[in-house]
This record gives sequence, C-alpha cells and structure tokens, in this order.
Amino acid sequence: LNNIKIGVIGGGQLGKMMILEGKKMGLHFTVLDPSKDCPASSIADQLIISDFYDSKKIRELAEKCDVVTFEFEHINAEGLIALEKEGYKIYPSPYTLKIIQDKYDQKSFLKKHSIPVPEFLIVNTIEEIYHAASILGLPLLLKSRKGGYDGKGNAFIRSKEDIPKAYESLGSGKLELMVEAYVPFALEVSAIAARGITGEIEVYPLAENIHKDNILDITIVPARVNKEVEEKAKKLAMKVMEVLEGIGVFCIEMFVDHDNRIYINEIAPRTHNSGHYSIEACSTSQFAQHLRGILEFPLGQTTLLSSAVMINLLGEEGYEGEAIITGVQEAMKIPGVYVHFYGKTMTKPKRKMGHVSILDEDLNKALEKAEKVRKIVMVISREGKVRGD
Amino acid sequence: LNNIKIGVIGGGQLGKMMILEGKKMGLHFTVLDPSKDCPASSIADQLIISDFYDSKKIRELAEKCDVVTFEFEHINAEGLIALEKEGYKIYPSPYTLKIIQDKYDQKSFLKKHSIPVPEFLIVNTIEEIYHAASILGLPLLLKSRKGGYDGKGNAFIRSKEDIPKAYESLGSGKLELMVEAYVPFALEVSAIAARGITGEIEVYPLAENIHKDNILDITIVPARVNKEVEEKAKKLAMKVMEVLEGIGVFCIEMFVDHDNRIYINEIAPRTHNSGHYSIEACSTSQFAQHLRGILEFPLGQTTLLSSAVMINLLGEEGYEGEAIITGVQEAMKIPGVYVHFYGKTMTKPKRKMGHVSILDEDLNKALEKAEKVRKIVMVISREGKVRGD
Repeated sequence: LNNIKIGVIGGGQLGKMMILEGKKMGLHFTVLDPSKDCPASSIADQLIISDFYDSKKIRELAEKCDVVTFEFEHINAEGLIALEKEGYKIYPSPYTLKIIQDKYDQKSFLKKHSIPVPEFLIVNTIEEIYHAASILGLPLLLKSRKGGYDGKGNAFIRSKEDIPKAYESLGSGKLELMVEAYVPFALEVSAIAARGITGEIEVYPLAENIHKDNILDITIVPARVNKEVEEKAKKLAMKVMEVLEGIGVFCIEMFVDHDNRIYINEIAPRTHNSGHYSIEACSTSQFAQHLRGILEFPLGQTTLLSSAVMINLLGEEGYEGEAIITGVQEAMKIPGVYVHFYGKTMTKPKRKMGHVSILDEDLNKALEKAEKVRKIVMVISREGKVRGD
Repeated sequence: LNNIKIGVIGGGQLGKMMILEGKKMGLHFTVLDPSKDCPASSIADQLIISDFYDSKKIRELAEKCDVVTFEFEHINAEGLIALEKEGYKIYPSPYTLKIIQDKYDQKSFLKKHSIPVPEFLIVNTIEEIYHAASILGLPLLLKSRKGGYDGKGNAFIRSKEDIPKAYESLGSGKLELMVEAYVPFALEVSAIAARGITGEIEVYPLAENIHKDNILDITIVPARVNKEVEEKAKKLAMKVMEVLEGIGVFCIEMFVDHDNRIYINEIAPRTHNSGHYSIEACSTSQFAQHLRGILEFPLGQTTLLSSAVMINLLGEEGYEGEAIITGVQEAMKIPGVYVHFYGKTMTKPKRKMGHVSILDEDLNKALEKAEKVRKIVMVISREGKVRGD
C-alpha cells in the first residue's frame, strides 16, 4: 500500500474525501486540478496544476501513478482513451466516461440495453424543439448534451412560449442539444453502486434526494419508498453497472413516478454528493469503496448502520468572500451530528462549502434534527452581508 | 473552522489519525516532529522539524496556532507550562502532563485522590530495591520514573536474583527509579475517556487488551468482564479525568485481578493504541473526540456500533528496510475488516506499522476473523528476510 500511487483528476471535495480514506491505508495521491487552493490540495502528496483538458498534463499524471481515476466527469476523455490504449490503468474506463459525458449517448446507450429512461430526442434547431414538443408533449427539458451539472446546462420548458428563452439560455444553437420528456415524479432517488474488477457489484441503500434550485439540498436514507420500489431500483442500478462495465463507484439518479415506475435520470461515473451519508452511516464509505474498486481489491459491505439525513451547506445568499462557518458548536450539541467543511477559502451564494450528516435510529428524528441544524449552521463571509436586494 | 489552526506535538500515527479527522472539518494542522518523513507529514499543512524538548521550536508552534496539543507525552512540559502562563492555549494542560510524565508523581497523585493503584515505592539505590522487595513482596516491577513506553523503561523482578540485572538494565542508578508491586491480573483493560471544557465526561466502552512482549497485541471490545466490573472501571476513569482536570482524550489502563478488584496501571494524556477500534466501531472516534475536547466543542457520543477486535501490525521479525505490507487484498475479502497502514517508510521488528480493525456483531466471530487476518497480513521489507538465527 505504501507504494501504490493514485492519480485523481479533480481536487474538489469528492477528491479530498477520497484521499482522507486512502490516507488511512497509507496510499499516495497526486491530484490534477486547475486551482492550487482546491480542497484536496492540503492533503494531496502532489498537485499538478492544470485544466481538465490538457492532454500533456494528464499524461504527466498517468506517468506518475499506478492508477488514474477522476472525481468529475467533464474532463478530457479522448486523452484518457489514448492513455488507456497505451496500457495505463484508468478506472472507470474512459470509454464508459465518454458515453456518460454526452447525455444523448448516455440515454441512447441505456435505452439500447432496455433500461427505462424518459423519452428523449436530439434537437439541432429551434424548429426541432417546437417539433419535439408536439411529439413528446409538455413540459419538456432542454439540455445541453455535454458539460452540465447542478442544473447548469438545463432549461425547463413549461409551454411553447418558453421555447425561445430556453433555446437562448443554452447558447442559441452553439451547443449540442437534446430534449427530454418531463417525468412527473413523486420522488427523486439515487443508488450509489460499486463494481469490482471481478464483476462483483455492491449497491448502497437507496437514497431519497430533494433538490432546491437544481442543487441537491437534502438526502434521506433509507429512501421513503416501499420494498418493491427499493428492490426494483437496486436491480436497475446493478444492471446499469453491468452494461457500463463500471469499475469503482457510480451514482445512478432515478425518478420514481406516482405509479412507482422508475426512470434513470442521470448517471455519474464517480462518487456523488448523495452518497456522503455513507461516511458515517455505512460500513464502507463510498470513498473507501471507490478506492477498493480501482485498486482491484474486494469490495466492502454497504450495510446501513443507522438512518441518516445529509444536508448540504451552501454559501449563504448575499455573502461573498472569505468563508466563515457559524453555529458549528451549537449544532454539535445535538447527538449524531457530523459537520464536514471542505476548506474552500472563498464562499459565494450556493457554492457547496460543506455538508452535515445527521444520524439517528429513527429517521423522523434525524429529519427533525436536520431541520434544527439547517437553522443553526451557516456559511457566510468575513466581509459580511453584501448590500442589495 | 477554516481558520482554526491546531498545533500537534508529535507526527506519528496518532497525530496522523487526528489530522485525518480534523481535515473532514477543514481544520489547519501544524505538526512538530523530529522526522520530516513522520506519518503525519504527508497530510499536515505545516511541519516544524524539531525534537520534543526544543523550547524555541515549541514556542514557534504555539505562536502559529490557536491551540496546541500532543500525541506523545515525553515532551518538554516545562516549556509548555511557560507558554500556558503567557496565555497560549494548550490542551491537555501541561500541569496535568507533568504529573503524568513522572510515574511516581502520577501514582502518588492518584493515591492521594483515593484512586486504587498497585503499591509503589521510590528507590534510589540497589539496596533500596532489595529493601522494597522485602516490603512489597515479589514479583516486583522496577520502573524508570520517566520516559518509558511499550515496556521500555520497565524491568520485571521475579526473584531477588533478578535485581542486579534489572537495576543494570535501567541504568544502574543513572535514571530515577521506582518499584511497583506486581498485580496478578486476570485481565488488562483500558478506558478511553474524554473531558470537555465544561467538565462533561464521556467514557468509551471498556476495552480488553492483550500485550505481547510488552507491546499491545490485540484489543477486544467490549471487554469480557461482567457489568459490575465495567461500571466500576468506567467510574474510575471518570474520577481520573476529574481529578486530573483532563481536556480532550486520555487513556486509562487498568488491571482487573482475580477478585475483580481494579487498579490503575498507567494513564496516557492522549489518544491511545487501545482506542483505535473507535474509528470504525463508535459514533465518534477517539481522534474526533479529542479534537472536540481541545476545540472547546461539545463532546460526541461514544456509542459502540458493533463489537470489535483490533490487532496491531508490527514489523515482522527478521525483516528490516523499506516496508511492504502483504495479504491486504486477501484480508479484505473478509467482511468487516479495515486495514490501516501508517505510511512509515521503513520497517523493523516490532515497529508499529499499522493496525487492522475487525467488526462483527458477534464478538467471537470478530475474534475468529482477527486470527485469520493475523495469519494473512504481514509487514516485511523489500530487501527480504535478513539472514541469521
């Protein structure tokens, strides 16, 4: 273990939490990130400052390491494919990454393998969006095929009148676009799943996610669904891991509609915000599990030790500048509260600055505690509230 | 949290594991250690290379940090007392440290507070050892008052014939010495206890410890004692924390004799090898708890989530040089196995290189698994087995 060198593309909080697990085992980490102050920087053994598309720097990373992985999917997949061809070990496979990067390819791939997804169509012009609306009905989601996350790259079309604005907001044709039928969902859920080198698959307990302004706000585990839905969702997650030949941890986001039908929303070929609860609530955290996967080690157990609620700590509205977290001491008085603060120097509204996991045997009590914590803990700035609205 | 700077004297595995917990919360760590390659070095924000008695360097550490703590007790207590007088925050208090550093003072202090300890006497000459033997009976332990750990600084006297060799092995009068009556114990146990700034005390489940060649070999949690002994031991631990006015985590090692009487063996004013199980098996690990204590935060819960066994990974006999760990992959096939490898570059016989925690609801199964792991995982050297005996 002393001598295993892992390369991580992306040094955000996901990379940081992975390194924290790996350091327990004495692993060595080199991180590639554009920012020298990224959250992982303070604990990485080496840092390569580079954007995520610089083939030369990514090659440098691969040359230094025994295995390369990533905490972010919008990176140079072609460069990684070339390296994989040369024999460098890259997990998950860059071919899988490439399919997932393009939402249209991702959905087409899943559909081809009989995995249920919302109806979708490729659209190249505004006329084709109008046409798609008449085929798929309304509401409709207009999506950039590549590069979106946390709702960025998506536009919601409620009526035909919304189409021009939506089209404009996604670059008026400069980006490759697709449309997707809107699923009137009862619940959004996600399954963190891991696949090992031998093909073994472990799926974590189903998590229920509530988004606010398209950003994950709260994760509730176990998801409040019946046994049948839980089983069906887990089976779907396993099938996704199989057909994508994933190695390491993936997140499979799903919609559950009012008739308990399940549709895959999106797949992330990496650890995920909705799996943070696993650090305290599961026998193996998603980060430790990912490392086991990419090291070709046996996977760990995903047993849920306690019901859990995770709330994200976003930069408070109206505050920008040097980050300060308040209320931690008070929140820690509540039993079962675990505060994570990513160590980002600067805050701005809605930036993911940390999260809090709240464990309680009784899920309702965990939810009550989470509401309390939400009122107590805030990320503001040293400079104080910015004037305005 | 972003802005709280913690200074840690000692960068061994205890310091490293503390930093791993603190980094989850975004804390900043400066470590003082003689070795630039110490286990904590790869994740510390700053490293001050210095021996543990250099007042100037310790002052430099205090000046850089909001609070200073230590992972090792054989350090410059006088220097820390001077700094505390000037208003620097040092937890646990260097006054407490000073009492504990000297085993004679430690035992005297405990005895004064009616806390049961084995009989003990100060001895200055070999004649006084003979005399002590006639007062306290045999067997007897000859101990250096200061500086010992892992059995170093102790000599066992079974019969009067052993006295000259024991005296010689502890410096023939060059060191300050004491003798202690040998407790014919049924069990060695330890309680990890934490005390907060408000005086609140949390005690972890009692751990049963088995030593081999004076080094901790295996920790079994919960200790196999009856409820009464467990309660009595925990109460003693609380009393120790109270009278010593401890802040943060302490380890209280105890003997349980065949009549279930309990005696305090030794106190460590820091996190302890016998508390490593808490990382996976308790709601709050001893390292997170120590940080809560020294940050003046409320303490966390010490609930045991699962029975656990911890085995130390010592450098294998006959191997010296660049460390290699073998068998990890195979051991990880066993559910509930967590391998920790400290990242020390060099191994030598009996050096503490890592540990494995084994969790199972059923303590006997955990013990069986531990025996398996013991056979599988080994720390050897790249250079291979040294010839000889």
